[in-house]
Amino acid sequence: MFSETDFAYMQRALLLAEKGMYSTTPNPRVGCVLVRDGVIVGEGFTQPAGFDHAEVQALKDARARGASTLGATAYVTLEPCSHVGRTPPCAKALIDAGIARVIAAMEDPNPRVSGRGLDMLRTAGVDVRCGLLERPARELNIGFVSRMTHGRPWVRLKAAASLDGFTALPGGESQWITSEASRADSHAWRARACAILTGMGTARQDDPQLTVRAVETPRQPLRILVDSRLGLPLTARLLDGAPPLIVCASDADEAAPRAAALRERGAEVIALPNPQGKVDLPALMNVLGERGINELHVEAGAKLSGSMIREGCVDEWLLYLAPNLLGQGFGLFDLAPPASLAERRQLAFHAVDRVGDDLRILARWPS
Amino acid sequence: MFSETDFAYMQRALLLAEKGMYSTTPNPRVGCVLVRDGVIVGEGFTQPAGFDHAEVQALKDARARGASTLGATAYVTLEPCSHVGRTPPCAKALIDAGIARVIAAMEDPNPRVSGRGLDMLRTAGVDVRCGLLERPARELNIGFVSRMTHGRPWVRLKAAASLDGFTALPGGESQWITSEASRADSHAWRARACAILTGMGTARQDDPQLTVRAVETPRQPLRILVDSRLGLPLTARLLDGAPPLIVCASDADEAAPRAAALRERGAEVIALPNPQGKVDLPALMNVLGERGINELHVEAGAKLSGSMIREGCVDEWLLYLAPNLLGQGFGLFDLAPPASLAERRQLAFHAVDRVGDDLRILARWPS
Repeated sequence: MFSETDFAYMQRALLLAEKGMYSTTPNPRVGCVLVRDGVIVGEGFTQPAGFDHAEVQALKDARARGASTLGATAYVTLEPCSHVGRTPPCAKALIDAGIARVIAAMEDPNPRVSGRGLDMLRTAGVDVRCGLLERPARELNIGFVSRMTHGRPWVRLKAAASLDGFTALPGGESQWITSEASRADSHAWRARACAILTGMGTARQDDPQLTVRAVETPRQPLRILVDSRLGLPLTARLLDGAPPLIVCASDADEAAPRAAALRERGAEVIALPNPQGKVDLPALMNVLGERGINELHVEAGAKLSGSMIREGCVDEWLLYLAPNLLGQGFGLFDLAPPASLAERRQLAFHAVDRVGDDLRILARWPS
Repeated sequence: MFSETDFAYMQRALLLAEKGMYSTTPNPRVGCVLVRDGVIVGEGFTQPAGFDHAEVQALKDARARGASTLGATAYVTLEPCSHVGRTPPCAKALIDAGIARVIAAMEDPNPRVSGRGLDMLRTAGVDVRCGLLERPARELNIGFVSRMTHGRPWVRLKAAASLDGFTALPGGESQWITSEASRADSHAWRARACAILTGMGTARQDDPQLTVRAVETPRQPLRILVDSRLGLPLTARLLDGAPPLIVCASDADEAAPRAAALRERGAEVIALPNPQGKVDLPALMNVLGERGINELHVEAGAKLSGSMIREGCVDEWLLYLAPNLLGQGFGLFDLAPPASLAERRQLAFHAVDRVGDDLRILARWPS
């Protein structure tokens, strides 16, 4: 159904899409390659929100090269949009440019519009095929897919531990268990996320900035603190820079002065209580979905990490294992053990790589 | 210095050597390829102790094929021996067969004889070179090298844990955390060891047979139990089959009846006390070295494993990590934490592989 050259051009489109890794949010990362008579005449990838989508970028690129797109093939990593958002519909732009053939890696994951862009193209007489390299295309936009299909971000829980499973010494010392290479790598994962979430324990222990520093990025993710009782000191580094989102169980009554003080410091404070008087984490995931958060990067202590897992709010584990032994200390996730091994939480290794001296493990729920 | 064909023949010799993986103990695993006029005329690998070494096997193979070895090249993964042991010296056999050239992967690691076999060959006018594919050759006989250079076996500590670092549920349930593929793989590591060691905690909890079952082997490793107070029940499965070695802190006074009963059941019982009234593990390693144990495979609980690590008796960690979360349970190694992260026990990942659904990690002290 697809030729070897189709694969090669789609690979190229995927590479282009990756260039938007740190910048397209809340839009998906999309790449587009225009090919005419066996020659690439235009290339593009999604620009920051409000600016051109990949297809329009590629058409502009072709025009800049003085190349005709009449009868050309467009390779796109995601179905071209059919609706007028902040930009005009890409399907229409392709039709207007005389594109004869469109090969898409995957349909739009939004069930409300899925297939409409391809239909618009077909109706206009364009030869349309879909499904080439769909798996890597979905991976590239795993957060966007999650938000469009479940209304929630794809939640990646990052942790770093010794080989014997400890994240800090009994006295709390944790900087650094892993190597510099791992920490730089983890910043790349921060950078691709739309938001970074931590909890009050980590905020108190490490006073983190929660920013992307070890890699270059045109955009800093939204910083989110889960802080049921609004205990964050007003001197916390989290309150410097762009306003963080602080999620508490109550911002009224006795918490009102603290909420006011934090708002005074620029933070957005919202209350999302659950019946236990803690932050309702699943509700928070829905709020983040509504706010266009595709990938959520969580760096928290064992307690909040455990709560996130227990409440079904984790999709993926990003675990750095360092080749050292601590013997005792803080564990990874505060979870009650299963009654028997048969009832354990079963995951699956998705990818395992060496990063510097360490091991980087990506695990997910079994598919 | 070495040609491409030299590499290829030595690779072949290494493959042959591997055929002795489960059977050559206490001798090293050695492979030999004889090449004459660009044709392999004989191949061999070390037979069980008391039988032919690789070189003699290869010469016999050449004779069986009716091939001349006059002027041939011998590729051997270890320096040919120069002494009369249970078999005549291989260097002499090669000289007598008219071998013109010997390429060895490594010298004999025994400092008392190292280089003598090569010298004997050189004196006889044989063209001798050494060091081709030395690294894999050393790996293949890592236990023999350890015993010859330090008088102790190479100690491989095997453990299996969940992704969050637990080896059993709080109630003790541990069968099975890892997949069947990992358990079969771990039996291959048992099979290549000269001895398997466990402790009383595991003996009581799991009543293990400590035999190789999941892979075929012509030889079962010696089974060793560290049992300071000789508390092993006489009904333990460890007492079935070949006599195990039980190492205690005292076999006299009040322990004498228990020692006698265990000996009655066939076990060898030796006392190796340290000043704390426990088993002197470093002394045990020396005893095992004297007894010709090249590779020691340890499968023990957190306590004995921790003692082995603390007392400098572990060379390598063989860790199976399963993609599941237990939350709480027994930890991997019972070790006191370092005073600070700077003083932690630092290892290095030697090899990381996927085995079934699990991860197999080999870690060593940094080189």
